[in-house]
Parts: sequence; structure tokens; C-alpha cells
Amino acid sequence: MNNTLPIIGVPLGDPAGIGPEIAIKAASLESIKNIARVRLIGSEDVFEAVSKNLSLSLKDLDIHYVENSVNGSFEYGKIQANCGRAAYDAIKEAAKLAINGEIDAIATTPINKESLRAATINTIGHTELLSEFTKTPNLMTLFQTNSLRVFFLTRHLSLIDACKAITYDKVLSGIIETYKSMILLGIDNSSVPFAVAGLNPHNGEHGLFGLEEEDFIRPAIIRSAQMGIPVVGPLPADSVFYQARIGKYSAVLSLYHDQGHIATKTYDFDRTISLTIGMPFLRTSVDHGTAFDIAGQGIAQFVSMEQAIKIAADYAFIYKEKYPEFLKFNL
Amino acid sequence: MNNTLPIIGVPLGDPAGIGPEIAIKAASLESIKNIARVRLIGSEDVFEAVSKNLSLSLKDLDIHYVENSVNGSFEYGKIQANCGRAAYDAIKEAAKLAINGEIDAIATTPINKESLRAATINTIGHTELLSEFTKTPNLMTLFQTNSLRVFFLTRHLSLIDACKAITYDKVLSGIIETYKSMILLGIDNSSVPFAVAGLNPHNGEHGLFGLEEEDFIRPAIIRSAQMGIPVVGPLPADSVFYQARIGKYSAVLSLYHDQGHIATKTYDFDRTISLTIGMPFLRTSVDHGTAFDIAGQGIAQFVSMEQAIKIAADYAFIYKEKYPEFLKFNL
Repeated sequence: MNNTLPIIGVPLGDPAGIGPEIAIKAASLESIKNIARVRLIGSEDVFEAVSKNLSLSLKDLDIHYVENSVNGSFEYGKIQANCGRAAYDAIKEAAKLAINGEIDAIATTPINKESLRAATINTIGHTELLSEFTKTPNLMTLFQTNSLRVFFLTRHLSLIDACKAITYDKVLSGIIETYKSMILLGIDNSSVPFAVAGLNPHNGEHGLFGLEEEDFIRPAIIRSAQMGIPVVGPLPADSVFYQARIGKYSAVLSLYHDQGHIATKTYDFDRTISLTIGMPFLRTSVDHGTAFDIAGQGIAQFVSMEQAIKIAADYAFIYKEKYPEFLKFNL
Repeated sequence: MNNTLPIIGVPLGDPAGIGPEIAIKAASLESIKNIARVRLIGSEDVFEAVSKNLSLSLKDLDIHYVENSVNGSFEYGKIQANCGRAAYDAIKEAAKLAINGEIDAIATTPINKESLRAATINTIGHTELLSEFTKTPNLMTLFQTNSLRVFFLTRHLSLIDACKAITYDKVLSGIIETYKSMILLGIDNSSVPFAVAGLNPHNGEHGLFGLEEEDFIRPAIIRSAQMGIPVVGPLPADSVFYQARIGKYSAVLSLYHDQGHIATKTYDFDRTISLTIGMPFLRTSVDHGTAFDIAGQGIAQFVSMEQAIKIAADYAFIYKEKYPEFLKFNL
């Protein structure tokens, strides 16, 4: 084991899903061992059950057992309170280890909202849980698919509400947040700027169909550039993601959920990884669910898990190094 | 020359742009000669000027000169009335040849709206011109990127207007038009259905953010299925294009311009080809402009032209064969 590699903590997720399987499989890959020291985090019962059921060896793996997480037995593919609890305990332990500096970043596996609820945990998901554990309220999400990075100005709004949410102030603060987030990834935008996507087809074609580009988006970009932020746009949404993909832009600020999601996932579904930014450590995540329908069968694909660990390893050190600068950031 | 291959007419487009260059280069490819007989269509002056300026051989190419198209000399990269006129004449001639059955399909190169206007031609673009020449008012556009096919329910509307345009009737007629268009491509949907994308993130998550899926889209799909159309959905827009890409669906009906454009172009920008459906013959088109900035330099990429010819050749015969069935279509 190479002690200069970043330690990536991987909580097992919901035991009834494919989380433990993909975590163990990915951690066992030689390609992963060359870039990271993976520390699997979960209840001993879960490790034992999954390794036995799926004939997966735990030998040579770095395992951190979560004490006092009473899991006991469970069934694959079912919503169960003890599974929700085990998932919760593993994430909480991962956050504790990261805060204490025992691991450098976290790559998470899928959890199930209903299982959490069955365990009387009403937090919606990973981001909210981690926000709570680390006491960092404002977290940013970005997607990375291979070298394409996509930020989101809005997320869980109906499309019509997302359109209405586009204002000068909203775009300006989104650009600043994006710029700030890039600090943590160690990305110097001075040579390659990031881009803001347009909202309407062909950027509204000079107001012919849609005025948001001229009224709000372009003025916010001009103001940002005056503040010294290397940002360009608005660029027509149908080409900006491709241009970023081929390296012309360091990232794209997308304006609504599906704008960025369609781009990243159509490009490469399995390698689309979610990054959560703003905590003292980086968290990456697979972008799929618990897959209850195939859990416990040993047939789960783990390319997404592999990629989540890889991206966590890529940024883990620079993120921690840049964190003080990020906190002090001021324009 | 293989006489069993489809004859694909390629009008040269705007002479001041890269159209003539990419047409001649693509027509000269061995890979194209194996699948199609390309007939280049344009003014003799343009062929002479471009072949001389760019040292492109016209030997072994099948050329159809447009008579009485007075072009004379022109400059690359400039809006010129005689170039607009030459582009117009070439398209009109291509349509005539296709109507007469002398060519089997058309693959078009870029034209310039302003050059057309300078030549006092006020039609917006190819689709409108061809609609006029062939007297077929209702044309459908679809995009094909490698094996991914995408139809559009709405196109040149602001995003907020596109949201408002989503009604039960609109979605139902869009599904019927999509189904009808697939006849012309010879696609039997009975084993692999086509899919309708959702409008809101995660399909609105049961009405949590957006009601269009439950109020309009799903009921229209249910009604369509009752009418015997093999269609499924709504499917979350962030995964449906990828699933169609890997063959799970024969096509996707996208609900707004950028939904389908982002999917196809981020996936493979250069191989995104536009198909115009509804005339007695198929028309495909490159999805880029005249590129005035690099015209006349011999450096234009022609992968898009190559792909437009290839897709035209793929469908040319089946399209003509199915056209009577398409005209008689009734549910």
C-alpha cells in the first residue's frame, strides 16, 4: 500500500441495495489500488453477510467497522429500518473520520430515502445528512463526466419555475459560487474560462424567442467579468457542453436541472459523478440508486463506483489544501 | 460505379462558405463511393472556382451543372447576392431532380440567410424552401446521431413558451406524427418502442415539481397506446436519451428544442444530422453553418457532410418505398 495516496472513505450505503457489492468490488480493483487507499466503512454484520452471499473476498481490504450499528440480518431488495439505520451510521462515521483527518475524501454509495424514513431519519439524502454532520449549510453540487464539469444554477424546480428563477442577481451569484467552487478543485481559470449556458434555443436569437439572455444572463456575465472572473457566455446550450467536453471551457454553469443532466448523462451515463463542494472535505457520489431489483445477485456494474473513487482521489489533496483559501474567498 | 446504390443529390450551398469544399471532399471518399452515388449540384462557375482555389479534383465525380445560374466571381466569407442566388438555384434544381426521380434523396450543405436575403429571397431556410418547391406544407424534423433518433414536439419557442405549449392535444399529435414519420424510415416499432421524454426534473417527482407529466403527457401516452402506437413514457429526460442511445428505444420524442439538441450534440456534435421528413423524398443536412471564417482555406472538416450523405443513403430507398403508406396513414 502506497502511503502517499489519498485515503478515500466509502460508506457501504443501504445494505439491501447494491452499495456494499459495488464498494467491495471497486475497492478490490488494481486500477483503484494504484490511485487511492480505499477505506470501506460499515457495520460488521453487513460486511459478513455480503461477502458470504456474493463470495466476495475482504482480504487485503482496508475496513473500518462502525461500532454499535446494530444491523443483524436483512433481506436484499426490501425497505428495512435496520438497513436505513446502517446506511445512516456508515455515512455519519465517514463524516467523522473525514473531519478528524483520518480519511481525505468520501465517495458514497446509494441509500434509500424510504429505508431512512423507516429508521425515523427524515433527512432527504446524502447532501443534507453531510451538511448536518459537518455544519456547513451551503453546499454546491457539480457533475463531472470524464473531463466535462457542469454546475447547476437551479435544480429541483419545475421547468417553468426554473425559467422564472432566472434573474440578474441569481445568475450573478451562481457565477460567483461556481468560480469559488473551482478554487477547491484547483482549477485555474485564467487560461481556460468557464461558460454560462443560455436558456432559450439559440440563446433566444436576439430576443426573437426569449429575452432572458439579453435582460439577465449577459449583463450578469459582463458584471462578473468586470469583477475579474474568467467567465464567458451565454453560449447556446446545444453546443456549449460539447465545447467544454473538448476542453474549450473548464466548466459549464447550466441553468436548470435537465440542461446539465441531459448533457452529462447522454454523453456517458455510467461515468457521470456527482461532487459535493463546500464541506472541509470533498464528497463524490455514484449517480444511480440502490437497484433493489438486482441487489444480492452479484451482477451489479461498478464502473460508476470506480469513477466516483477515482475522481475523489484526483481532487482529495488539492481540495483540502485549498479549503482555507476557499473560506477566505472574497471578490 | 455501382448502379444499385442510391443516388444522393448534394447541392453546393452558399459558394462563399465551406459547402462546396465539404461536398467535393466527401463525394471523393472511397467510403462514400461504397454506399452511394453522389451527384453534386451547382453552378459551373462555383465548381471551377472552388476546385481551382482549393486544388480539389473533380475527376470521377458525378456533377450536375445548374444551367442559367449566373454566378460569376465571388469572394469567400462574404455575404453576396450572387452567392445567395447560386445557393437557391442549386437547392431548387436538387428538388426538381428528386421529384423527377433522377436522384433518390438530398443531403444539403450550409446556406446563409443573409445572402439569400441579398438575393431578394426571403424564405428562412432549407426546410421552408423545400416545403415550397415540393408543395408539402407539413414537414417534420428529426435528428439522428449515430443510432440515436430524436424528434421535437416544439422548436423555436422560448423555453417558457415551450413549457406552456405542452398540452394533452399537443403531445398526442406529436406522438402520432412521430409514429407516422417512423414509417418513412422503415422502423418497425413493434419490438422496440419509442419513448416520450418528461418535461420536469425526475418527471416532476409525482407532482412535487411540475404537473405536466401527470396532467398531459402520461394521459396522451396512454391514449396513444390504446390507439396501437408502441410508445412509452414519460421517461425522465436525464436518462431517456442515453437509453435510446444504447438501443432500448427506437427514438425519443423530445418536448423542447434544447432537450433534444443538448442530448444529440453533446453525445456527438459532428455526427448530429438533421432529417426532414414528409416530402416525397428524404432530405438530410449537416448541422453546422457556412463557416465564413474558414471558407476558401481548404481546412474545413467534412465528417458531418459524410454522415449526412451516409444517413441519406441508409434511408433513401426505404423512404421512397414507404411514401405511399405514409400518405395513406390513418389510425
